[in-house]
Amino acid sequence: MSNKKKLIQPRTLKGFRDYLPDVMMPREELINTARRVYRSYGFAPIDTPTLEYAEILLGKGSDETDRQMYRFEDHGKRDVGMRFDLTVPLARFAAQHIGDLGTPFKRYHIATVWRGENTQRGRYREFMQCDFDTIGTKSLVADIETALVIHDLMVAIGFDDFTVRVNNRQVLSGLLEKLGLAEKSTEILRALDKLAKIGAEKVAEEMQQAAGATAEQAAQVLKLAEIEGTTDDILIALDGLVAGNEKGEIGVGQLRDLTQATSAAGVPSDRLQIDVSIARGLDYYTGTIFETFLGELPGIGSVCSGGRYNDLASLYTNQELPGIGASLGLDRLLAAMEELGKIDNRTTPAEVFIAYFDEKSLPRYLQIAAQLRGAGFNVELYPEAKKIGQQLKYADRRGFKVAVVAGDRELEENCVQLKSLKTGDSQTASLSGGAEELIAAIPQILGSTT
Amino acid sequence: MSNKKKLIQPRTLKGFRDYLPDVMMPREELINTARRVYRSYGFAPIDTPTLEYAEILLGKGSDETDRQMYRFEDHGKRDVGMRFDLTVPLARFAAQHIGDLGTPFKRYHIATVWRGENTQRGRYREFMQCDFDTIGTKSLVADIETALVIHDLMVAIGFDDFTVRVNNRQVLSGLLEKLGLAEKSTEILRALDKLAKIGAEKVAEEMQQAAGATAEQAAQVLKLAEIEGTTDDILIALDGLVAGNEKGEIGVGQLRDLTQATSAAGVPSDRLQIDVSIARGLDYYTGTIFETFLGELPGIGSVCSGGRYNDLASLYTNQELPGIGASLGLDRLLAAMEELGKIDNRTTPAEVFIAYFDEKSLPRYLQIAAQLRGAGFNVELYPEAKKIGQQLKYADRRGFKVAVVAGDRELEENCVQLKSLKTGDSQTASLSGGAEELIAAIPQILGSTT
Repeated sequence: MSNKKKLIQPRTLKGFRDYLPDVMMPREELINTARRVYRSYGFAPIDTPTLEYAEILLGKGSDETDRQMYRFEDHGKRDVGMRFDLTVPLARFAAQHIGDLGTPFKRYHIATVWRGENTQRGRYREFMQCDFDTIGTKSLVADIETALVIHDLMVAIGFDDFTVRVNNRQVLSGLLEKLGLAEKSTEILRALDKLAKIGAEKVAEEMQQAAGATAEQAAQVLKLAEIEGTTDDILIALDGLVAGNEKGEIGVGQLRDLTQATSAAGVPSDRLQIDVSIARGLDYYTGTIFETFLGELPGIGSVCSGGRYNDLASLYTNQELPGIGASLGLDRLLAAMEELGKIDNRTTPAEVFIAYFDEKSLPRYLQIAAQLRGAGFNVELYPEAKKIGQQLKYADRRGFKVAVVAGDRELEENCVQLKSLKTGDSQTASLSGGAEELIAAIPQILGSTT
Repeated sequence: MSNKKKLIQPRTLKGFRDYLPDVMMPREELINTARRVYRSYGFAPIDTPTLEYAEILLGKGSDETDRQMYRFEDHGKRDVGMRFDLTVPLARFAAQHIGDLGTPFKRYHIATVWRGENTQRGRYREFMQCDFDTIGTKSLVADIETALVIHDLMVAIGFDDFTVRVNNRQVLSGLLEKLGLAEKSTEILRALDKLAKIGAEKVAEEMQQAAGATAEQAAQVLKLAEIEGTTDDILIALDGLVAGNEKGEIGVGQLRDLTQATSAAGVPSDRLQIDVSIARGLDYYTGTIFETFLGELPGIGSVCSGGRYNDLASLYTNQELPGIGASLGLDRLLAAMEELGKIDNRTTPAEVFIAYFDEKSLPRYLQIAAQLRGAGFNVELYPEAKKIGQQLKYADRRGFKVAVVAGDRELEENCVQLKSLKTGDSQTASLSGGAEELIAAIPQILGSTT
């Protein structure tokens, strides 16, 4: 006869995951960096409910998002769903509050979304989005700032080698008008969007099959998409191609103004390039569009994308709300940073570990910890008087950088041993006159371990 | 005949709310403060899925949480629920990962939870919890650190006048044993927990009705709960009361060690007090328990509460996982800060507003903005050349502190006007030799506006 009770098996749902500290810490850091950069441009945070009326979330959705949405009846028999992106909630939010908020309204929204996707594609059913948008202005200044935010964000995250690729839907539309393909532009742009993935030949096939273009027309669109060179070269080539088409001329003019302005603001020309081949499949973009690629890992795709739209919230209000925004691909970026060795495997946010010898010294340990925290260090005090070797092994495994070791002998002499957990080197720091010597010595050890 | 299309009414579900910038900014700041303090003690972040198997979430729940949980069938016909707290997911998480994580394991978890509660009590159905716990050690050092974290957190948030009230369940249990009420301790403690709310008379009634205590026994428990005085007075009184009962003696010893240690670590005695009347209704606390009250608003209840438990995850594993933790009451605290005037009504995270006059000056504005951002300021450039009065009204309404005004005349003279939006005062800052003069002048204006 067993006394064991029946246990519930601890497990997560398929497509969902726990974030352990080694994964959660770089994630938090990335989110904080995004927040800091967004705020530096005056974007303010908002949040919206996870659950909304299904009718609101489904308003604009494609059949695919409809199917993927987590949808159920709540306690009050309402038909509700969990948000599957932050764009639909923003549209609803803007329609509801724009009168109070006033325009231009600049917001960022960093939040979780859910999609009951097929996990065989390696996708998760719960993930974060990290969006910023400027709503209620058609001014190109907002487009320019969006480019600058993306640039500053990539630099702040720690990338040197990246390219923000910019295009303008009006250039594409104008050219399609000239080619007599205006009515098929959605299909053409969707095909064009796959250029990097499937190559020119297959894109040409799709343009003919899905959009009814002739082989000649498809070839001309692809010729446009393959324009390369310096920004000036590209602009001159585009001037020629769109000449006579108003939409196209406006688009090229906006690209010219945008690249000049970002250059004046200090963005190097290799980090912001016109790329006529990017189209962004989504229908609702109407002007400037962005994608961002890592120089070392272009194959993972765009890590920050967005663009300008004419009318954000037409499903919920008759007020026209033009805007522009972009979204940082958190998960993709974290995967890239992992692959590029930009993430260490620490599991503690603290640098300094204080070993614990016996209860009577506890007040001293607590004082030292408080002094170090006061000086800005993150400090963990081990809670049990285990063998020092065992404590240091714990500290090393967690990723602490420095251990403060102070047994009876050290405390009697009013000093501590400071041990670098990377090199194993020890040095003595006196506590006479407070923790100043300790506080001065730690940054040197931290410096030598990074 | 109307051309108007049918609009979907933009609205949120009952019990849910949008967070506009004026509410979201102090919320973000509070969360960042909590994160910073938790990290300074070596607590590491984790996250768990919003959706879990219903069987896991319901494992420990009371009937009330069962009823309140959002529960539905997912696309794969699984019985799933949305988490209603962060404790149950922590237990499941610890049971699943503790082998990899090792102990002691110190984690914080700041995340949204959902309960389909009755909104007539003024409760929301979606809210945030902000928990930290130390798992896998019975050492009192973890209890002491929990008290220190709560103290440092309140100070970091900006409170001077608050009290962390500490008690120990073993003191209460020991006393109940001495009074012959050991078997009714759950009911007694639940009644005692209501002392501040309903008063001694009603608590005594409940002890008699719900726990079958005699009037005399109830009076003795209440007498204990009303012990007051300095920490030393209370400890001496408790020594006398528990004398001869082992459990009680251990509990009083722990209270003595804890108060001595926090005092050694620099916590003023008025900010950490023994309060024998707090009981924390929940069954699973077994040792130290905490509540935290604001001196100016004691009536709103505890803003940070927690305690020690013997066995976190017994539903999911046979491994015993003792621990201690506490939870910051974000919404309650924000409501208190609002009431105490500690929250301003700004809707922008930026201090500096740059007015926009015409397109040809845009490169200069962008340069100035970049220089100010480089110096650490958050800066918004207005995107349209509206009348300056209209722009300044926008800036003032949003809560910017300083406006940089530079029309043709100023830029020709290579200077800008710096305008305090609080006082209306203007001063000139030269741009010759870069933005140094500007960067030096702004903090002075910011200082005078706070």
